[in-house]
Amino acid sequence: MAPGFLVALEGLDGSGKSTAARSVATRLRSEGWAVTLTREPGGTEVGAAIRSLIFANAETMSATTELLLMCADRAEHVRSVIGPALENGDIVITDRFFASTIAYQGYGGRLDLETVDGAIRIATGGLTPDLTILFDVDLDTAHSRRAVTGQEVNALDTRREDFRVRVRDGYQALASGSPDWVTIDAGAPPESVADSAYTAILTALELRRSSR
Amino acid sequence: MAPGFLVALEGLDGSGKSTAARSVATRLRSEGWAVTLTREPGGTEVGAAIRSLIFANAETMSATTELLLMCADRAEHVRSVIGPALENGDIVITDRFFASTIAYQGYGGRLDLETVDGAIRIATGGLTPDLTILFDVDLDTAHSRRAVTGQEVNALDTRREDFRVRVRDGYQALASGSPDWVTIDAGAPPESVADSAYTAILTALELRRSSR
Repeated sequence: MAPGFLVALEGLDGSGKSTAARSVATRLRSEGWAVTLTREPGGTEVGAAIRSLIFANAETMSATTELLLMCADRAEHVRSVIGPALENGDIVITDRFFASTIAYQGYGGRLDLETVDGAIRIATGGLTPDLTILFDVDLDTAHSRRAVTGQEVNALDTRREDFRVRVRDGYQALASGSPDWVTIDAGAPPESVADSAYTAILTALELRRSSR
Repeated sequence: MAPGFLVALEGLDGSGKSTAARSVATRLRSEGWAVTLTREPGGTEVGAAIRSLIFANAETMSATTELLLMCADRAEHVRSVIGPALENGDIVITDRFFASTIAYQGYGGRLDLETVDGAIRIATGGLTPDLTILFDVDLDTAHSRRAVTGQEVNALDTRREDFRVRVRDGYQALASGSPDWVTIDAGAPPESVADSAYTAILTALELRRSSR
């Protein structure tokens, strides 16, 4: 097992996870932790090209093509960024990991979940996060935040509302009953959301230390 | 089962399969057959972008990333080109199909063959060619033909010789004992190679007709 600690941040765009990620990374670094902050898709040079390709063609390409492109991005990310950082002992915080694929392409895109899992296993080689934080937010809040912040539009989050309802339901199904998941009320003010994420990470780190 | 007939042409670059493909397609069309001639990677708009991405980064990206990108290209190709053409009753001739992935990423890149098969199954949804023609040629002939014709360089075929030896061995392993494979001596003159491919296709078409 790699000496580092892998944290995945999950949720709809507009859930505030990217803002919280930066805040938490800064705070952890100021306390002396080595932190690698990264994202999917697009956490590598090849991944950035894959990300552009997906978002430019999201309306026309098949769900299976999208699944395999997301997993190609992840394969490169795991091997060239996440894996080496974990070997280095870093806390690796990734803004989206494989649960996004299950939620978006599986639940949202209605792909067979076993097929989705198969593609993910190929991409990750079996790597799983030590902790996944779900930034849970209702669709209206997510929508209005995306509008206010003018953040980069994730083409998958501009799909019809019923798609996003399925994505949110998928995330909640994944989180419920998973001991390695923590759900945060991401409708709270940003500082409060970031604080909850920070606490979740420190608690999980402490838990791992005490269980060794 | 779709009413069409799927033929995959396989072999190293420089084996003459692309030249034979054009010749055979022209001949079949002149005889009244509906023929779709296509290729992998790059048989779709999205696929052309994936093809560029792979060849531009072939020396640095991980073998698993390459595997998943090839399969993303294939997923789109199967769903938007091959599948509809087969439904239309066409003879579909594809210049490379999933055996290329087994030969190049599996045997050549030394990826676990079960992993490769898993990715292929996701991409194809289980579609297999009615006939696969292996254009078998020794490495020196393939190399000198590529140099003479100045054809587009396949970045995967510029790898070290031991890589290409493993690819050729992989193709031969796939062909041996597979009833749906025909191996052609692609070291013969181009007209003779194209003639052998034509005969193999007509024979397989006749065999299918008589078995129905």
